[in-house]
Amino acid sequence: MPEFLTLLPPTQALSELLAYIKVSPAAEEIPAENALGRVTARPVLAPHPLPSFTRSTVDGYALRAADTYGASDTLPAYLQLAGEVLMGAEPEFSLSRGQCALIHTGGMLPDGADAVVMIEHTQSAAAGEIEILRAAAGSENVLKVGEDVPLGEQVIKTGTRLRPAEIGGMMALGITRLWVARPPCVGLLSSGDEVVPPEADLKPGQVRDVNAYTLSALVQQAGGQPVRYGILPDQEDILYKSASRALQECDMVAISAGSSASTRDLTAQVINRLGKPGVLVHGVNVRPGKPTILAVCDGKAVIGLPGNPVSALVIAWLFIVPVIEACLGLADTRPRPSLPASLAINLPSQAGREDWVPVRLVEASGGYQAEPLFSKSNLIFSLARADGLVRIPADANGLAAGEKVEVVLF
Amino acid sequence: MPEFLTLLPPTQALSELLAYIKVSPAAEEIPAENALGRVTARPVLAPHPLPSFTRSTVDGYALRAADTYGASDTLPAYLQLAGEVLMGAEPEFSLSRGQCALIHTGGMLPDGADAVVMIEHTQSAAAGEIEILRAAAGSENVLKVGEDVPLGEQVIKTGTRLRPAEIGGMMALGITRLWVARPPCVGLLSSGDEVVPPEADLKPGQVRDVNAYTLSALVQQAGGQPVRYGILPDQEDILYKSASRALQECDMVAISAGSSASTRDLTAQVINRLGKPGVLVHGVNVRPGKPTILAVCDGKAVIGLPGNPVSALVIAWLFIVPVIEACLGLADTRPRPSLPASLAINLPSQAGREDWVPVRLVEASGGYQAEPLFSKSNLIFSLARADGLVRIPADANGLAAGEKVEVVLF
Repeated sequence: MPEFLTLLPPTQALSELLAYIKVSPAAEEIPAENALGRVTARPVLAPHPLPSFTRSTVDGYALRAADTYGASDTLPAYLQLAGEVLMGAEPEFSLSRGQCALIHTGGMLPDGADAVVMIEHTQSAAAGEIEILRAAAGSENVLKVGEDVPLGEQVIKTGTRLRPAEIGGMMALGITRLWVARPPCVGLLSSGDEVVPPEADLKPGQVRDVNAYTLSALVQQAGGQPVRYGILPDQEDILYKSASRALQECDMVAISAGSSASTRDLTAQVINRLGKPGVLVHGVNVRPGKPTILAVCDGKAVIGLPGNPVSALVIAWLFIVPVIEACLGLADTRPRPSLPASLAINLPSQAGREDWVPVRLVEASGGYQAEPLFSKSNLIFSLARADGLVRIPADANGLAAGEKVEVVLF
Repeated sequence: MPEFLTLLPPTQALSELLAYIKVSPAAEEIPAENALGRVTARPVLAPHPLPSFTRSTVDGYALRAADTYGASDTLPAYLQLAGEVLMGAEPEFSLSRGQCALIHTGGMLPDGADAVVMIEHTQSAAAGEIEILRAAAGSENVLKVGEDVPLGEQVIKTGTRLRPAEIGGMMALGITRLWVARPPCVGLLSSGDEVVPPEADLKPGQVRDVNAYTLSALVQQAGGQPVRYGILPDQEDILYKSASRALQECDMVAISAGSSASTRDLTAQVINRLGKPGVLVHGVNVRPGKPTILAVCDGKAVIGLPGNPVSALVIAWLFIVPVIEACLGLADTRPRPSLPASLAINLPSQAGREDWVPVRLVEASGGYQAEPLFSKSNLIFSLARADGLVRIPADANGLAAGEKVEVVLF
């Protein structure tokens, strides 16, 4: 039996993982002005309609539409000027038949008025009299109460990631505080006898810890709170002790293991000791990142990542980000940005396995060309040099030059 | 002469503006681990090559490729086991002809070795002897010093916005601090006698300040530092005093004016008093946002935004974000994410004017459909309900249903 039949494809592996997680999003109340990028934990309802009063959408004259019936350049309607509507105030007068009032964009319609004629279609006649050169329809150039938002409407759903527009919308409604999901804590552990901290001088045979930092940044970007537990030697008891502390203190744990087969097995053993059900998936049908371990211990996700920095980042993007979003209660309905491009060269792949290939984007006539960046062993700078990733689906033998691809920007 | 010929198109208006700005990005040194989303102010050079030693990319046996010449399953090469390479340490032995050493992924090749044969293609023979079942080419399964990054290479250019991958790359090189652009300060003023703070109870005729908050969020998203100067009445001297203070304290200023023609003229007068050359562009050929004012005073951009929240946000996105990016020294080479979709219905527009239309994206067979969200006067929740904006170019009379569009997500 070929190996790929024994490994789960990434989407199925993710479903397995999510099915076992039991983390309900914790919520906190924060000022709406600080809520950019946060995810709502409760629905936001309109405490009053918007607009809250009948407003003019133009500079002109508020009037009764019926009084302008048949008005034109050659046969104007003559209306008596009752006054000017001041901005920000309720008009101190109301309009009777045959009257009009000067009004500015955003001004409140006086009682009795039901439409506005733009200033360009009027002119001053005798003192206190205005010529109206166009007939107005009822409600013309007027916004009625509740036309944007009726009273009580759910304006923002639970699980929405807040953008500038939603923040503005809340301000318009006077909602200055709201409930959002607390950022889930992601415990990050690096293991490997060869791994030293970034500030260390390298001795021969040593490499610096990259994954704790790329993953911290990715977790932050996704709306989580990274907590680093340091670099641990490849010894089961030490690794277990730290992982167990991380599991207690965080909402999920990611262990970036060494690259050799023996350290990967060590990670699996440690994870299985952490809690039930333990390891669900050992090996995913994806490249890079095949040796990934997906586990749930006591309701929390525990992910064993390959030590290779590119594999770790791709796997984190495929599995850690969705778990963070699940912990946030993000309702996944908004499309993710990507960029259409055409492939610059043939890209072979093994059928039955999903591949993610770093590409650089080059502007060409007719759109972007995606140039795959090959590197012998997925070194970290092959990712730093890339603009995004192209996915080769499992059912393809590769992609042909010129083929349209979606580049996921990261 | 039709009006649109007298107004500049947005791209040209932006060029005018950028040409007059004289803000050189201020730089600060920060820890690399906090640099996500920041923009480099100096190039980052590799202080040593990566990898820094010759490494194995697999679990197997390090050896001299010449010793495996012609080796196969039926005619193995027999090599003497000289020892095991421990992770994170320099091997304490070197290989002579006919010798090999057990090595793990990421291990350092001993002197004398020039290739690695995977463990799967070997087996133990007598004690201290290994059968090699495949011939190895020179450098096979080996990463040489500098293969990812040679010594001294510029690994990150000035003006790069840092992603997780770049942060990881710096860590791999032991670069724990770097110089980034200081976030440019953007002074935000709201004017209008009808505008009250979000926490205020609305009286008839009043609306709450939305723009100060949507713009704060957008500025933050773009990498700037918003500074709010509050809500000001429509009085030239008061507005001038605050705008003048904002101009002194910030790198750019945005004044969201009232919506009536008179308050827009007031903004232009105030801006012209702030410094030379003053107003460059009064009116841009775009909808929403035509009454936009673009100015430069004493080398700093000053932008007069329409009071309408949707217009203000679209204009901020078209003009404030690029100015922030210029202040950051962002080298604009990386493609922006967008989403291809097909238009759900015909979308008329006035030829000669660029239109930006809020759309909702709906998944359909064959990709996303973009459904325009019409609203009488571009109310704030028409934007909160949208997934993105579609641009109708100035040279089009509109777009037809089914036409392919790029949706800019915001």
